[in-house]
This record gives sequence, structure tokens and C-alpha cells, in this order.
Amino acid sequence: MTPREKDATGAPGDGAAALIALDWGTTSLRAYLFDAAGKVLDTRVSTAGIMNLPVPAEEGGFDVAFDEACGLWLGEAPSLPVLAAGMVGSAQGWVQAPYVETPASAQALVAGIVRVRAASGADVAVVPGVLEPGALPNVMRGEETQIFGALGAARDEAAPQTSLIGLPGTHAKWVVVEGERIARFYTFMTGEVYAALCAHTILGRTMKHPAEPDTAAFLRGVSVAREQGCVGLLATAFSTRTLGLTGQLAAEEQPDYLSGLVIGHELAGLEAALARRDVALAGCAPQLIGAEALCERYRLALRAFGCGNARPVLHATEQGLWRIAVQAGLVVPRQDTRQA
Amino acid sequence: MTPREKDATGAPGDGAAALIALDWGTTSLRAYLFDAAGKVLDTRVSTAGIMNLPVPAEEGGFDVAFDEACGLWLGEAPSLPVLAAGMVGSAQGWVQAPYVETPASAQALVAGIVRVRAASGADVAVVPGVLEPGALPNVMRGEETQIFGALGAARDEAAPQTSLIGLPGTHAKWVVVEGERIARFYTFMTGEVYAALCAHTILGRTMKHPAEPDTAAFLRGVSVAREQGCVGLLATAFSTRTLGLTGQLAAEEQPDYLSGLVIGHELAGLEAALARRDVALAGCAPQLIGAEALCERYRLALRAFGCGNARPVLHATEQGLWRIAVQAGLVVPRQDTRQA
Repeated sequence: MTPREKDATGAPGDGAAALIALDWGTTSLRAYLFDAAGKVLDTRVSTAGIMNLPVPAEEGGFDVAFDEACGLWLGEAPSLPVLAAGMVGSAQGWVQAPYVETPASAQALVAGIVRVRAASGADVAVVPGVLEPGALPNVMRGEETQIFGALGAARDEAAPQTSLIGLPGTHAKWVVVEGERIARFYTFMTGEVYAALCAHTILGRTMKHPAEPDTAAFLRGVSVAREQGCVGLLATAFSTRTLGLTGQLAAEEQPDYLSGLVIGHELAGLEAALARRDVALAGCAPQLIGAEALCERYRLALRAFGCGNARPVLHATEQGLWRIAVQAGLVVPRQDTRQA
Repeated sequence: MTPREKDATGAPGDGAAALIALDWGTTSLRAYLFDAAGKVLDTRVSTAGIMNLPVPAEEGGFDVAFDEACGLWLGEAPSLPVLAAGMVGSAQGWVQAPYVETPASAQALVAGIVRVRAASGADVAVVPGVLEPGALPNVMRGEETQIFGALGAARDEAAPQTSLIGLPGTHAKWVVVEGERIARFYTFMTGEVYAALCAHTILGRTMKHPAEPDTAAFLRGVSVAREQGCVGLLATAFSTRTLGLTGQLAAEEQPDYLSGLVIGHELAGLEAALARRDVALAGCAPQLIGAEALCERYRLALRAFGCGNARPVLHATEQGLWRIAVQAGLVVPRQDTRQA
């Protein structure tokens, strides 16, 4: 992929590169090249997540990965500003960007940016994660950027004072935003636990993986979790096996049934957590950020919980990176679309 | 170990062997030699569980394991009756003893006994497991024998009409007995899930294993699960990591904290399941059958749930095997202690 309409002097002509931003996580690195209107000109994706660097970190692995992702762009425009979000700012990252505590505004994130100088000379501005302190603390790193991208996208509509945003994944997050601040959030280890149940417990042994996802089996699992929420996953998970033993659940249905169980328990837990604060999940219209197929599963599962207005948000990552970069003054948006 | 006071003719003199009974599970085989009063004369333990036979099953592995465990005893008294309970009666066992459905009495188990002829000529009577049918079925195999052993032990006391028995383990069972019948039960994959969380998720990565079990950390986990029961394990489990990140839980405390969380969620689920039938866990006096240290953990955890009268039962397995053998007529108990 080659950038379009590039001005070799780096002056912000139409379509000239104005910003590099990285979504740098544990298992992958996604680099975006933006023009001054916030449009993505080019994307580069690699597997060089912080736990999968091409060369060990202590031997310059971050620089190698950075140069492989951005070297061409910086070669053509060496003074491009660079922003990075995600686990690259963790204790195991390139530089540690300490957590900002809730309630966290976009401005607070900007104030918490930490810079690291790449060997090639580029300054990389790293976005901090967010910590919600308390008896059961919670942390996020990378999701905060996606959240502000999704909030920005909603700006043209009547922006509600309070909103709920779900980010399905290995460690699913559910985030409550109040007055444009990340107020509180919950982590559910749904993806990671599902994988561990399938690969490392008796439940996987009777499973056969179907050619197509089985939505009916998935919704059956969601329904069981919804009805048996307080008995808990430790008990309902076993039904993946026993229903197979009694001929009530085929081997090819078990993977999606268990997926529905686990996601159903997540949503039952979310419902209970919101209810403690007198919020009904069924009355929410959550935005969903994440892989398309997974967000569709969550949309269906939420509907089973009476929450029929969930909608996926696309490009939240890129929009979030852009928004933070503008707010941090790394880039001046064209056509006076700068944000306060 | 040698049997005592054995009569070479096999006539039931004091201390002469009268019965062989096997607790034959997935990963181990425990063989007991009884005299006619039900006293254990000798025990042999091996790792030859059904998934760990010395020779593959299709090459006679069950016979080999059986002969290694019982050959000496049968060599001296070839007509000794033999009873076996556990996974040896499963579809992957020596012979399949189909489940008996709830409500299951000891007599129903006896009626469901299936026999297999060992290559050496001995007839092995195999006890069936128990199935509770329904929308979420449940199965046990081996625990039914332990249950009747524990019930028999309580016989001299005022036997309650309804009792609760817990069997902690890889797949913990909680069994409701009504009128000397297994009426219903619940399975919690507590042990297996705990192991999977430690070994195969991010939670294990910050753990250090302490020299001694940390009871305070354990009870802290139980307490969190109790308070956050309906938010669920998917959410609370993550606190094992986040409390470490914020310096509120040391690496050496994390294993026992997570253990308390998982067991706490099991008990919260049990409490909810019993409550649906208007039974208060705190009002129960459950018997506990299982490994001593684990039962002690459960006793402490139950106390945190207001259930202060849990008591471990020792030798439930042997007593159960004996009771079933007598009821099946495999052995005539000395001193007219036969059971109806």
C-alpha cells in the first residue's frame, strides 16, 4: 500500500501524511498513517505485539518492530508526529505510561502521555491506561483510546450524559461513561476462560468444531446462563458435557453452546452490577467495539437479555487515536476542526 | 501388608477375608480387603485408573490392573466376592453399568449392578452411577457409593430426613438426600477450573506458590466471592491480577486468594440453588467427603457463609462399598448386622 498525494516537503497538502498512530497490543501491532483531516491513508499490520517482538526487548526489539512498521513512512516524512496506545505503555512495554485514575477524561489521558525516543530519532507519545481503584480494582490499556473514538463518533447525535460501551474480547470490558469521562468499568475474562475450558478441561474432549457457527446452540447457552445466573458458570459449564451424555446436545453444538453460556454469564454479571446502581441493562443502548463476528454474537446475546439496541461501532481505534493526537496537539486538524 | 488370621479354607473365622471391594476411578485404583464384620484388613493402592492402565484396555489392561491389585488376595481365597465402584463402570470402563436415575436408593444401585468376568475367573460386580435427568442433567459415578457410606455412618445418630453432603474435588458434587435416596445434586467444576485458571490464563503469571497455604488470603477470596456472587467468577477472578498490580495482594497470596474465590463462587451458587427450594445453606449441617485438607478449606468457607456445622466424614468410601456389598448379598455380615 502506498500513500496518496504526498507532499515531499511534509507541508499539509490535501492527503499529505500528518500523523502516525499505533495500536500496539500484546499480540499485534497496527499502524495507521493519517492525513490532516484524520483520514487513514495507509495501514500496516504485524504480529509484533509486545509479547511477540521480532527481537527481544532488551536487544532493541521495540525499535526493530517500530522501524518495520513505520520506517517507510518516516523515511519520507521524518518529522511526522507519532502516537501509540495499548500495552506498549505497560510495565512490559516500551515505556511505562502510568495509569490515569477514574473518572478519566480525554484531557486526563493527554496529560498522562509519556514519551519515548526511538533509536531512529522519532519521539513516540504513549497514551496511558486507566485504573479504577477500589476494593476490586480494574485496569484497561488500549480500550480507553477506543472508548474516546466511539464517543467522538457519537458526537453528531444527541450525546447522552451516561453511556455504556462494551468491548468483547479475551478480557471483555464494559465501560460506563458519564459526562465524557470513563467513570467505572468491569472486566470479564470471558474469551480467555472460554479458551481454557475448551483446551484444558474435560469439556473440550467431547466437542467437535462445526463448519459454521451454530447460532441456535449459542442462544441456547445464553438462555441457560440467563436463567441460572446465580448458580454460576462452575455449575452450568458442566451441562456442556452432561447434555452430550444424555443425547440432548450434539458434539458439534457444544462449542457454541459453551460460548453462549460464558457470554451469557458475563451479561448476567453485568446486569447484576448495573442493577446495584439502579441501572437496567435492558434499558441501555450500548455501543460495541471489537471484531465484527464477536460483536454480532454479543448483540444477539444482549437481545436475549432484553437489551435490543446494541450497535457496533466501526473504526473506534483509529478515531480514538486521531482524537487523542489532536487533543494532545500532536497534529493540527485541517479545516479548523480542532477540538477544545 | 499381609492379612491377619486368615483361614485357608475361606471359612469366615474372625478376621478372615470375606470381600474385595474396589474404588476404581480415572487416575487411581484403591482396593480394600474386608473381613465379615466389615473391617478393612488390607488396602492396595495403585495409579492404574481407567485412563492410566498399565496396558491398553483393548489388550487386557483391566485384567492386568485387577490382577496386580487383587491377585494375591484371590490366590489365597479364590472365591472371594468382588465389588467395584467408580469410573470402572463408565462407557470408558471395564463394563458399562448404566446410570440409575434419581431418586436413587441403595437398593436401586444394587438392582443396577452389572457383572464382568475377569480373565482369572473372578466375577466383578460393578456399581452403577446416578443420573439426575432434566433440562440441565447431572451425573455422578463413584460418589453414590461414598454417599451411602456416609449415610450409613450417620445411622446411629438421629438420621435427618433430608441431608446435604458435599464432595469437594476436581468436579465438586453437592448432594441432597431425602429419605435415604439421592434426590438431586449439583456439580461444580471448581477443582478443574482452578487448575486451568492457574496454568492456562494470565492469572498464573503473577503467582508465586507459598511454602504454607495462606488461610487469610483464602478467606479473603471467599469473602469477595460471597459479596460479588452474582457479578460472577469471570469478573472477580481478574481481581487476582489487578490487586497484585495495585500492591493490594502479594504474589504469594494470589494462589490461595483465587482458591477462595472459586470455592466461594461454588458455595454462592449452591446457596442460590438451595434457596430456590427454600432451603438456607446456613441452616444445613453438611457432611463433607474428600481429601482432608480440602475438606478443611470447605469447612472454613462454609463458615464464612454462615454454615457452621459442616463436618468431615472419614472412610465413606470403604463404608459405602461394604454397605452396597451387603445389600447386594455379596457378603453376609457377621453377628447378624445384615441390612434390610
